[in-house]
Amino acid sequence: MTATTEQDQESRRPSDAFHVFDTTLRDGAQREGINLSVADKLAIARHLDDFGVGFIEGGWPGANPRDTEFFARAREEIAFRHARLVAFGSTRRAGTPVEEDAQVRGLLDSQAPVITLVAKSHDRHVELALRTTLEENLAMIRDTVAYLTSHGRRVFVDCEHFFDGYAANAEYALDVVRTAAGAGADVVVLCDTNGGMLPARVQAVVRTVLADTGARLGIHAQDDSGCAVANTLAAVDGGATHVQCTANGYGERVGNANLFPVVAALELKYGKRVLPEGALREMTRVSHAIAEVVNLPPATHQPYVGVSAFAHKGGLHASAIKVDPDLYQHIDPEQVGNSMRMLVSDMAGRASVELKGRELGFDLEGDRELVGRIVARVKEQELKGFTYEAADASFELLLRDELEGGPRRFFRLESWRTITDQRADGGMENEATVRLWAKGERVLATGEGNGPVDALDRALRSALEQTFPELARLQLVDYKVRILEGTHGTQSTTRVLISTSDGTTEWSTVGVASNVIAASWQALDDAYTYGLLRAGLRPKESPAESPARQPAGPAA
Amino acid sequence: MTATTEQDQESRRPSDAFHVFDTTLRDGAQREGINLSVADKLAIARHLDDFGVGFIEGGWPGANPRDTEFFARAREEIAFRHARLVAFGSTRRAGTPVEEDAQVRGLLDSQAPVITLVAKSHDRHVELALRTTLEENLAMIRDTVAYLTSHGRRVFVDCEHFFDGYAANAEYALDVVRTAAGAGADVVVLCDTNGGMLPARVQAVVRTVLADTGARLGIHAQDDSGCAVANTLAAVDGGATHVQCTANGYGERVGNANLFPVVAALELKYGKRVLPEGALREMTRVSHAIAEVVNLPPATHQPYVGVSAFAHKGGLHASAIKVDPDLYQHIDPEQVGNSMRMLVSDMAGRASVELKGRELGFDLEGDRELVGRIVARVKEQELKGFTYEAADASFELLLRDELEGGPRRFFRLESWRTITDQRADGGMENEATVRLWAKGERVLATGEGNGPVDALDRALRSALEQTFPELARLQLVDYKVRILEGTHGTQSTTRVLISTSDGTTEWSTVGVASNVIAASWQALDDAYTYGLLRAGLRPKESPAESPARQPAGPAA
Repeated sequence: MTATTEQDQESRRPSDAFHVFDTTLRDGAQREGINLSVADKLAIARHLDDFGVGFIEGGWPGANPRDTEFFARAREEIAFRHARLVAFGSTRRAGTPVEEDAQVRGLLDSQAPVITLVAKSHDRHVELALRTTLEENLAMIRDTVAYLTSHGRRVFVDCEHFFDGYAANAEYALDVVRTAAGAGADVVVLCDTNGGMLPARVQAVVRTVLADTGARLGIHAQDDSGCAVANTLAAVDGGATHVQCTANGYGERVGNANLFPVVAALELKYGKRVLPEGALREMTRVSHAIAEVVNLPPATHQPYVGVSAFAHKGGLHASAIKVDPDLYQHIDPEQVGNSMRMLVSDMAGRASVELKGRELGFDLEGDRELVGRIVARVKEQELKGFTYEAADASFELLLRDELEGGPRRFFRLESWRTITDQRADGGMENEATVRLWAKGERVLATGEGNGPVDALDRALRSALEQTFPELARLQLVDYKVRILEGTHGTQSTTRVLISTSDGTTEWSTVGVASNVIAASWQALDDAYTYGLLRAGLRPKESPAESPARQPAGPAA
Repeated sequence: MTATTEQDQESRRPSDAFHVFDTTLRDGAQREGINLSVADKLAIARHLDDFGVGFIEGGWPGANPRDTEFFARAREEIAFRHARLVAFGSTRRAGTPVEEDAQVRGLLDSQAPVITLVAKSHDRHVELALRTTLEENLAMIRDTVAYLTSHGRRVFVDCEHFFDGYAANAEYALDVVRTAAGAGADVVVLCDTNGGMLPARVQAVVRTVLADTGARLGIHAQDDSGCAVANTLAAVDGGATHVQCTANGYGERVGNANLFPVVAALELKYGKRVLPEGALREMTRVSHAIAEVVNLPPATHQPYVGVSAFAHKGGLHASAIKVDPDLYQHIDPEQVGNSMRMLVSDMAGRASVELKGRELGFDLEGDRELVGRIVARVKEQELKGFTYEAADASFELLLRDELEGGPRRFFRLESWRTITDQRADGGMENEATVRLWAKGERVLATGEGNGPVDALDRALRSALEQTFPELARLQLVDYKVRILEGTHGTQSTTRVLISTSDGTTEWSTVGVASNVIAASWQALDDAYTYGLLRAGLRPKESPAESPARQPAGPAA
């Protein structure tokens, strides 16, 4: 990296005066039901960096191989625009010189520029959980902070159980803060680890600690009382200038302070600029995208970003909103990339289709009838279980179909078959056959793979590779399946999301059907069609020659 | 009803000094996705009365036939032990004498002893939405309160948009409070109708209004900022003695202040007795029961009552919790009828395996070597992609295998095959064949289904149903698939999570393999094995006769 681009990057970084610190990848991952792969972590880090948080805590390098790998790959693969990567770890072990502590060495080895050290600040925890003396705990903090700063790292210290500790032994808790700051920690973070605090108390304690120590303070609030967002804001009221949050409030037990309502309150209600210009308008999208990566449904009633957050049902409200939407909304939903909904219909309106179209390079605003048709098509598809939020490439194909007057595809499917065989000798075989038409030729091809979808993918590639050598560059990089509950007594359906890469860009496609293989086929079909379009090819077949956009499966 | 039982009832009623007022049946019903029948409303009213809230707002009698019927039936069918029934309605129409107002008549006709009147307190709303003068609005409030109290009703007045109105025109907002109290309203409720307030502001406004008017004040907070619980408590800090909440926070848009964390904070953190003795211990049950009635899954991460609210995952936490659970819990979960759970994941160590074993009824603490073997096995399996945190039943089978010296299963697989056929005519077929051994017999069976896994499930059931009729009761209730990226150059793997129910209990199992069908097979195998164990059966085959716990697929 040259000095110039480093400077450019520096100018885009958020101001250091206030820290938005995200710990989705570390504390968020503690949520029951979340199990992040390294690829998931990288994807989330990209979303958070795009969104514009100042710090991304990536995990505990050295403590588990997955986190170690994440730091190595993040360094190589992500050109962070806004965020700095943070490694989490603990103070040195009791009785061990810091330079001989393997865990501390792991933190340096991660090459993260910033390190958060967790330290005990509750006297009872030092004695019961750490099993050392109060003095040794202070020495552990002092030594570790000094050692890491002497190696050029910026250090934040998380004071675990600070508020409970302060209630039990205020003088010791304050000693911990003074020790950390005195040894060179930039921020001392007061943690409500058990999440039982309420805002009035948090504000009072932060204010007192600030007055007593003069240290720069941060807040880390768990949500066990249902007050983590309010506690975080109360700490800011008390003088904290560093807030630790997680996307969608994911975290241990009930969860952590939810990043999205915290930054929205700071920007929209405190008038504090804590994110890059325009970031807040991406908030709904970012929230949902991260939910997709962790494979949890986006929380429908989440403040600001839930699909129901601006959905109005009450008759009183509806009539007043016709007069003026501000009458029943605390903010304009567009400020956070969300939209108002009046009915129990599930989807995006004209404005978001126009916006998405613009994002994809199509100017739709002039054509009200076209936009209306696309909105109707999207609603119809989403009712079946499709989701275009997470499948931009499938949305673009849908949009092109409407724009260009009917589906234009590179090939037309006749039929396919997959066989999966678990043999008596323990071996397994997966075989697929496809029959299709491309450039006027009927092609029959067979593939073998690790599973039926893999075999189908190979058969499809084998059928098409002579005609379209461009396909050789395409690679499936992610594949997700979700079973959607049937509505109105119908059977459940399967939704498949596929991410495909051509080495430079990645795109996502969606398929929905009664079974996983048929849904996968649809997503594969879209993935390769989109890939060929991206490679600059234009389909020769007219809509008439290629009538079926998708195989007419029984439940697609 | 005799005078004696009325007296008895009176003595059981909560003290009037502090009101816990529930509006699940009115405001909660505004949540997107909730549609309550009269029977649902009666069932919820019974749960809330059992729980011990002081007031249950049942709806708007006269405004819709369902609510009218609810009041008629509630009066007849429910012997309220703790709560008083409240009818919701609005002040008289502008320009209409109160005694001629049909809507006000409907409130009297409901025979509810308490009436909540909604009144405008924001000058702009009076003009834009009500389209009347500020003076007439005050007269409407004065007349309606006086009329209803003269008919023996107790009246509370909800000041809609109070906080926004106070910011826009404080003097008018205060006039509304004074008018309502002066006309005989017992409580004047300050409403954050748009839900945009933050606690510091709420507390300051409540304190000022109390000082200025001397009226008894209540709070009604919507959750659009994610601060409704904190705002409710802040109002109590400011002097409010009446809190309006909904069960599980159901309500318009994002929702209302959640009853459960509000009463838990008041009882456990403020030391205020606001519910009958022992009620709080029923809270988790009541929350889940109401969720069942409204037909929504109980929110897993809800404070205090979610199944994850006291679920611990981090290894650091687990080892500390073995020393003392209070170290990582803000309250004892039994205080609210919930319980602690340990999640077994690769982040966890020996301590969580021991605790999890104890939870399942196995005492492992004496046997360090056994625990070590289980931890090693869990780590090894999780590295392959298994997740036991979401698959308790698979974990129990793993634990039993280690405890009982090798896998003991009810049947042994020989082979299976699935064929999925997308025909040229658009039709689709899924067929599966299984060959297995059960009780010494070789069985061959075939099944057809919506997809290959469904077909495999049907073939398996068909193969086993003669030998194990208990399987007929088992039903697959959820099915999730996730593709995990390979680490260190290996191929990607597929993880399947299946939830199975026997009508009373639900359990989850996991399978991991290179393809979705093989992974599904493993999860099905565990699901049925666990189901048969639960049904009281014990496997007869010794480990020697049944060497393979799972089919030895290439990537299992």
